[in-house]
Amino acid sequence: MAEIILVTGGARSGKSTFAEKLALKLGNGRAAYIATAQIFDDEMAQRVKVHKSRRFNNWANFEAPFDADKIFPTVTENVILFDCVTMYLTNWLLTKNLDAKNIFTEFEIFIEKLITAAEKSCATVIFVSNEVGAGIVPENKLARIFRDFAGLANQKIAAHSEKVFLVTAGIAVDIKKFAERI
Amino acid sequence: MAEIILVTGGARSGKSTFAEKLALKLGNGRAAYIATAQIFDDEMAQRVKVHKSRRFNNWANFEAPFDADKIFPTVTENVILFDCVTMYLTNWLLTKNLDAKNIFTEFEIFIEKLITAAEKSCATVIFVSNEVGAGIVPENKLARIFRDFAGLANQKIAAHSEKVFLVTAGIAVDIKKFAERI
Amino acid sequence: MAEIILVTGGARSGKSTFAEKLALKLGNGRAAYIATAQIFDDEMAQRVKVHKSRRFNNWANFEAPFDADKIFPTVTENVILFDCVTMYLTNWLLTKNLDAKNIFTEFEIFIEKLITAAEKSCATVIFVSNEVGAGIVPENKLARIFRDFAGLANQKIAAHSEKVFLVTAGIAVDIKKFAERI
Repeated sequence: MAEIILVTGGARSGKSTFAEKLALKLGNGRAAYIATAQIFDDEMAQRVKVHKSRRFNNWANFEAPFDADKIFPTVTENVILFDCVTMYLTNWLLTKNLDAKNIFTEFEIFIEKLITAAEKSCATVIFVSNEVGAGIVPENKLARIFRDFAGLANQKIAAHSEKVFLVTAGIAVDIKKFAERI
Repeated sequence: MAEIILVTGGARSGKSTFAEKLALKLGNGRAAYIATAQIFDDEMAQRVKVHKSRRFNNWANFEAPFDADKIFPTVTENVILFDCVTMYLTNWLLTKNLDAKNIFTEFEIFIEKLITAAEKSCATVIFVSNEVGAGIVPENKLARIFRDFAGLANQKIAAHSEKVFLVTAGIAVDIKKFAERI
Repeated sequence: MAEIILVTGGARSGKSTFAEKLALKLGNGRAAYIATAQIFDDEMAQRVKVHKSRRFNNWANFEAPFDADKIFPTVTENVILFDCVTMYLTNWLLTKNLDAKNIFTEFEIFIEKLITAAEKSCATVIFVSNEVGAGIVPENKLARIFRDFAGLANQKIAAHSEKVFLVTAGIAVDIKKFAERI
């Protein structure tokens, strides 16, 4: 079964850079990169470009804005970097009816599918995610639901992870190593 | 004098779940739960319902959206879980005139009252609170004042606490154990 | 070359209070304080007043809303507290055309200038900064750019720092001490 690692942190915390270094180290200079972004506008195109410029030839590149579980089995590298969970969640959430009664159950199935696909992989899987819950409660409902689901997704992935790195100002701490066990 | 423990973290960080486990562990399967929510709408009713469904028969349930200091002396359990400080602060703040000159002094009295009540208790008191200050400065004044007061409340409670757990993605780290002492 | 220390945290996390104590301890009761605030309104005047009331006679006071690199060489104290990076960034950003193509390059020059000035100083320099990236993505562009630049500034300063304190509820943890090195 795959070893899972979660790398989380706020915006511009340096989490992606850390995760990329970690992936290449664990993969001895070679890893698979599963990108999740859909390109909607110039600002996002620019962000993706900056990300890609760091990815050189060491990477096997995959795109999975949706149905990432179908991508995992096709990867032959020993290390997979999945960047990022919150973008992948956003893509999914924007296709959903937020007022549907079963939205929470659907979310649980959605996130379990991703974790199961990672666990079935023979590779070490590094998930990058975002901390989005340490600000004021957002005024719009979509943002609140997204915030809830992002937090829950991180909890679920962290529970399946060997290591959970919280990145702040480029400094990554494996909080699972220092965690209280009860 | 009571031992005080603070459990803080962002939204959906898993702080309540951790605090509940901790309370039942410290209380050998029995604890008091002081709930602070006022039910305003369906969304909140749903959140409270999810919370309550985790509380089974191991809990003595109390409701204290206001004047929690009057509840503490009535509790006979050895462990009290107070969930949560930021909701309790919100309830109080919504009854106040934010432009009053003495609002800050009133806040200090309000929070000291809560801490004193906890300290006078014979129980171990676990406060759950929220990290709300790590986003962008909010545009509306109430949100800014709330954010300030929530941060200050956490500082004050943490100063009186034996342990301060910061929960991220369900992982709880006792940051007081790793703190710099100066 | 100066030793650099970064103290970061959310709003009302107690980061300034911790940084002030640290500065006076390292300076044996005497330190320089470089303030960055521009006074725009009563609310900010009040915040500055609270800050200054903690600064007594132990401090040599400097004001540097802009061009702080010109202030550092004039300071003769052994410890400099710079409070704060995000305010200093805000002052600068508000003078800029956000749509300019070279805004990112300009930002890099701006922040390198600050770091270089600190490194050239003979004093120990303590930078206070804010964590602003752990909430929901802001809707307005200025806030998004500010959030990006604040995060990047923290990364750059942290990379040059001996110690990086993350402050939560008044508790300061040197995350660089516990960091994963790869």
